[in-house]
Amino acid sequence: MSAYEALKSSFHRIACLDEASAMLGWDAAAMMPDGGAAARGEQLAVLAGLRHEFLCAPEIGDKLAEAGEQSGWDKQNLALMREAHVRAIALPRELVEAQVRAGQVCETIWRSARKAGDFSAVREALAEVVRLTREGAVILGEALGMTPYDALMSQYQRGIGAAQAGAIFARYEAFLWEVLPRAEELQARQTHEALPAGPYPEAVQAVLARRLAEAAGLNFNAARLDISAHPFCGGTPSDIRITTRYDEGDFAAALMGVLHETGHALYEQNLPAAWARQPVGAAAGMAVHESQSLIVEMQAVRSDAYLSYLASLAAEAFGKAITPAGLKHRLRRVERSFIRVEADEMTYPAHVLLRFRLEQALLSDDLAVKDLPGAWNEGFKALLGIVPPDDAQGCLQDIHWFDGAIGYFPSYTLGAMAAAQLMAAARKALPDLDEALARGNLSPLTGWLAAHVHGRGSSAGFNDILLAATGEGLNPAYFEAHLTSRYLG
Amino acid sequence: MSAYEALKSSFHRIACLDEASAMLGWDAAAMMPDGGAAARGEQLAVLAGLRHEFLCAPEIGDKLAEAGEQSGWDKQNLALMREAHVRAIALPRELVEAQVRAGQVCETIWRSARKAGDFSAVREALAEVVRLTREGAVILGEALGMTPYDALMSQYQRGIGAAQAGAIFARYEAFLWEVLPRAEELQARQTHEALPAGPYPEAVQAVLARRLAEAAGLNFNAARLDISAHPFCGGTPSDIRITTRYDEGDFAAALMGVLHETGHALYEQNLPAAWARQPVGAAAGMAVHESQSLIVEMQAVRSDAYLSYLASLAAEAFGKAITPAGLKHRLRRVERSFIRVEADEMTYPAHVLLRFRLEQALLSDDLAVKDLPGAWNEGFKALLGIVPPDDAQGCLQDIHWFDGAIGYFPSYTLGAMAAAQLMAAARKALPDLDEALARGNLSPLTGWLAAHVHGRGSSAGFNDILLAATGEGLNPAYFEAHLTSRYLG
Repeated sequence: MSAYEALKSSFHRIACLDEASAMLGWDAAAMMPDGGAAARGEQLAVLAGLRHEFLCAPEIGDKLAEAGEQSGWDKQNLALMREAHVRAIALPRELVEAQVRAGQVCETIWRSARKAGDFSAVREALAEVVRLTREGAVILGEALGMTPYDALMSQYQRGIGAAQAGAIFARYEAFLWEVLPRAEELQARQTHEALPAGPYPEAVQAVLARRLAEAAGLNFNAARLDISAHPFCGGTPSDIRITTRYDEGDFAAALMGVLHETGHALYEQNLPAAWARQPVGAAAGMAVHESQSLIVEMQAVRSDAYLSYLASLAAEAFGKAITPAGLKHRLRRVERSFIRVEADEMTYPAHVLLRFRLEQALLSDDLAVKDLPGAWNEGFKALLGIVPPDDAQGCLQDIHWFDGAIGYFPSYTLGAMAAAQLMAAARKALPDLDEALARGNLSPLTGWLAAHVHGRGSSAGFNDILLAATGEGLNPAYFEAHLTSRYLG
Repeated sequence: MSAYEALKSSFHRIACLDEASAMLGWDAAAMMPDGGAAARGEQLAVLAGLRHEFLCAPEIGDKLAEAGEQSGWDKQNLALMREAHVRAIALPRELVEAQVRAGQVCETIWRSARKAGDFSAVREALAEVVRLTREGAVILGEALGMTPYDALMSQYQRGIGAAQAGAIFARYEAFLWEVLPRAEELQARQTHEALPAGPYPEAVQAVLARRLAEAAGLNFNAARLDISAHPFCGGTPSDIRITTRYDEGDFAAALMGVLHETGHALYEQNLPAAWARQPVGAAAGMAVHESQSLIVEMQAVRSDAYLSYLASLAAEAFGKAITPAGLKHRLRRVERSFIRVEADEMTYPAHVLLRFRLEQALLSDDLAVKDLPGAWNEGFKALLGIVPPDDAQGCLQDIHWFDGAIGYFPSYTLGAMAAAQLMAAARKALPDLDEALARGNLSPLTGWLAAHVHGRGSSAGFNDILLAATGEGLNPAYFEAHLTSRYLG
């Protein structure tokens, strides 16, 4: 066996462990009784430990040194193997363990601190998380030849860094100040048709959600739809597990959630099977992943064409007067609000931008953890003109920083922007797209995405995938045009 | 860290991998979409490979050589570690792989051969499985100082071998010939009260099943009840997963199935937590496990007292005239039949006895695989006086041999006999047992079992657990007395 073949075999084994972890993670969220939590934690820790051990193994380093020049996808596969190994050996074991422990401690304190709206309770724990994250980021940055923040950011998406993202986000800030007041004004002048009051029975919602996911192209011979407290997409390419939660007073939330996760799931189902369990065969990162959920949920499903279809389907399923206008009122409205996960697509980037700036300041120690609440509120006011009434609705709302995830937030907005850019290209390539959407048929769109995004795996990074699919790297003009057309049109 | 402490840590890690495999196995049977099967097979193979690798590791051998004398449970724990290591290193890797491959090939052919009732189609594949199993059994027997068959049997239950089991089964054969005709005659003379015709809605069955399992002591904060094609008990002690299947024409099957699996589940839930993930903290083998499912299902639940309770509960739940007499007619009837898994408790041991004899003859090469159908039919006639109309209802009915499990069958009947013996001892210790059962309350019984069986883990083998709990090793007289009382009383 050649050195490269041996590496492929090692990474195949690591991927199988990752798949086992993914399924156990899904089970923990969707199925596991409470009593199983402690044991599940240990099972996942053992699998993660083995993954790290295998990635760090000296034989991997030896084989990487021996492996000759490769070409095509093998070349990129080898480069990704090398990067994974460098990342794994860069951090001393004691540091990784300290990070895990600090994250667990901080997350536990955060849960009660958030409930109480008491930032001071979690301040010290967060400071320790930030300190250890910074220590690791400096080491990783040196090993990878990046700034510390880019080293963290690149854990979540490859092929775009903070410099480019920062410039794009700054441009968006100016755009937002121009269009948000106009959209609000326009909205205030329109008459609104509300959706009928519930109840919308959970069982009917579930059948409808499954039908829409199937119509969007999800293959349920290799997927499940279940319930969990926080909707997500997990599992593996041949066994995707998506979840949602149902509110009998509001059917739209669950349906949009399912279609969002369906976008993620289609990406996984359409990854190149020939490269399964190799680094180059995996999804290209969180920003690309988010572009795939948002192109389905925001670009396709919230289009006029699809909402007409959805209204008639939902009206029939629930036996209520659900109209396209009612759905538009529910699903296409801008509103300045405090909670990121509830924000509309126009103000959402402001939430991300704030976090993007603050987490860089925390990492570089330009901002002390004790000053975070003040900086948050000030920044929020500067971006959206409103101030959170308490820290629970401010800097305590997201789990990310408290469990050590710094560098993740940009992916949400990079994904939203990429989704608009991809949709514009898809529209050009598929002149009958709206006609298909009006029949609930997403297959022309998802077929195009399978060819230009899904099937490419990790053979290219964020900007290069966009470049090949649309003719240019990330260009925020498409997202701006989309919002202008939808909210000012 | 002492050598023994290091071993404990290694076995803890192995147990975590086993837990991951157990959860993935449950998922495959209860949740997984068909498309996930191939990937799941690979995930489980990787975990099994790691388990084997870790058990065989030279460091394990070194630490076993270094580990000093231990006492109490640690002594037994060390002995079990040693045995696991000896078993793992005894078989050459090529042989294990050949066994796995042959088992997979044979099982696949068997599925269609059984459907077609065509033994000749699977004959060669089975011969290969038997040949490789024999080769392994000889090696294992030498490593463990046992006969080849005992080496296989001891994979499934420790502390009882073929010599003792054979003598006990031979005695049962004589007993059966005496009591079966008498029971049949008595049964023929009785008037029968049938249960009302269905439908018994699945949802109502499921609620009732869960209620009965809870009343039997199952803690659903650490357990789930789901549906699968073949009911089983899987998962881990703090996260037990039991399954059943529902037939709307016959509620009794699902309820008995759930209570059977509940017996298994209680055993796992009550294992000694202080020894979790150590060999000595695990269940004591399949025969003891089966005794725990059968003491619940056959001894407690099918007693007069419990059936009166169950009848009133079921009558209320289904709104039908379900009487104790109707339940007795459905659940306590002897009948000579061809299919083991459908057999009553009196004739079931005959099915096991036949397999026990035939698998020993196959293993020792006293019986050629090609002569199996003839030997089966002859043996069946000698035991129960009837001849299967075809091999599908004969030697093709069970998966066990075809996927390489030889030595497993005795546990069913050893478990049934142990259940009767334990029940007799529990009755002596708990004079009010029937009163509790009449209220559906199994906690006095399960409390006694927790103390005398569950909580002992693998600190003793089959006979020694019985000896400590009942004052004697396995004595078939209790099972005979139970059957005599129930069917000739």
